[in-house]
Amino acid sequence: MPGVMSSTSATAVCEDPSTRRWRLDLAYDGSEFSGWAIQPGFRTVQGEVERWLTQLLPVEHRIPVVCAGRTDAGVHARGQVVHFDLPMDLATDGGADLFRRLTHVLPQDIVVSHLGPAGPGFHARFSALWRRYTYRISDGTVGFDPLLRHTVTRVTDRLDLAVMNEAAVDILLGFQDFGAFCKRKAGGTSIRTLLELQGRRTEAGILEFTVRADAFCHSMVRSLVGALVAVGSGRRNRTWLAEVTRAAARDSTVRVMPPGGLTLEEVRYPEADQLGARALETRTVRELAR
Amino acid sequence: MPGVMSSTSATAVCEDPSTRRWRLDLAYDGSEFSGWAIQPGFRTVQGEVERWLTQLLPVEHRIPVVCAGRTDAGVHARGQVVHFDLPMDLATDGGADLFRRLTHVLPQDIVVSHLGPAGPGFHARFSALWRRYTYRISDGTVGFDPLLRHTVTRVTDRLDLAVMNEAAVDILLGFQDFGAFCKRKAGGTSIRTLLELQGRRTEAGILEFTVRADAFCHSMVRSLVGALVAVGSGRRNRTWLAEVTRAAARDSTVRVMPPGGLTLEEVRYPEADQLGARALETRTVRELAR
Repeated sequence: MPGVMSSTSATAVCEDPSTRRWRLDLAYDGSEFSGWAIQPGFRTVQGEVERWLTQLLPVEHRIPVVCAGRTDAGVHARGQVVHFDLPMDLATDGGADLFRRLTHVLPQDIVVSHLGPAGPGFHARFSALWRRYTYRISDGTVGFDPLLRHTVTRVTDRLDLAVMNEAAVDILLGFQDFGAFCKRKAGGTSIRTLLELQGRRTEAGILEFTVRADAFCHSMVRSLVGALVAVGSGRRNRTWLAEVTRAAARDSTVRVMPPGGLTLEEVRYPEADQLGARALETRTVRELAR
Repeated sequence: MPGVMSSTSATAVCEDPSTRRWRLDLAYDGSEFSGWAIQPGFRTVQGEVERWLTQLLPVEHRIPVVCAGRTDAGVHARGQVVHFDLPMDLATDGGADLFRRLTHVLPQDIVVSHLGPAGPGFHARFSALWRRYTYRISDGTVGFDPLLRHTVTRVTDRLDLAVMNEAAVDILLGFQDFGAFCKRKAGGTSIRTLLELQGRRTEAGILEFTVRADAFCHSMVRSLVGALVAVGSGRRNRTWLAEVTRAAARDSTVRVMPPGGLTLEEVRYPEADQLGARALETRTVRELAR
């Protein structure tokens, strides 16, 4: 297992004793952000959070934050989780003052809901057991509500929800290579465990798809939903979906749905005494799969 | 009944035989509009609708539209209803083509849901039996969801819903002078029938107040909810609410809630054979009350 012993893994698992790790939970409206990841010259969630943390604390260098799910431009979050490390002598009140000040300075489209010391071995990305996203669609069976246009994608076809749910269970769920639904990344794996993919129609007629997996590769949720929309509208059939999935190679016939309908709802972590073990396990699997 | 015979009333009740009246139903996100009513130099809903109607049809003058409820800047609508008159030789296909073209040209924050010939005697404003609004609040009992910030008002106090609902039923409902909750208008009356004012907490913890009346005067819904919020937070008591209401004069201690939480949800009209009679009745009452 060469990956486990690499310097990258060792650094993150063995914590620096002069710092304390913090967990911050936040929600944001992604409409006016160029995504999570910091990019010079663009307004990003990571950029805003790091800038304000650094400004509020007596530190010399920018405080880097690590998130559970790096959302794309226009994608929202209700349950994003991040961690960062602070010198032991900062935030000695358990983070209450920093939390209050963050609440006041952050822009209206970012809301923090929790700040506290992280459990031992906690890593926002690698300790996670699973991520849950929702993708919301207004299809041709209902009138489009302009008040929802930032968080719901409009599709003109009428979608057959039963057909979509059946195809999801029969073809997409489980442990497999999701290469057909991922933007290829050099040296990365697209093997994931898709734990849940199911749609329901809300009272207002909106289709709400819950998509849950141990982890997602880039554009995976939006591509999975795009493939199901093709089947639900009757433009494609189950055979097409099964073949595309089996081929496990990025397929241009799979539509990547627009970002506005997507929201990261929840990231689940194990009990406190399992945080470090889970992080080590995730890293080991990722390294082995390369 | 001098009002009934005035030239204004007579013009609207007796329709011009060379034109046909149309009913258009629409929804809009009010966030980026300076309200419904046209104002030179400002982006308004009426301005957009009239501009596009006029541009799509072979007419020489701007087509004026009349709405059921003139919403303020930042107020939304899911069920706004308007009427306008077109020469008989236009839209002879029942409006299908005009509807389709309107759908395509209108900006993303206005969505039309119906267009058709209006029933005899129909007047979007005067034929209405009642208007239903909702006012949405996120109070201190739940974390604020930034995805809802355009349509839900954030209040930091924790609100006692039972106390608010009781006060509404005991003090506010019914036929009375709502002068305490209206911006005074010269020559206008503030006597209205408040048919429903009740809050519920949604699954997500949002307080949703339904406010229904035969008609509303300016800022009435937002002032009624503002007064109830004062009572629900414990900052004011029922005696204060009863006294303010009884005084029936605009009271600066009543907070007008921000516009973003307010949505015009529905306008109800009588059966087709009662549209003209209802318009006449409304006008008569308004004139007599002056």
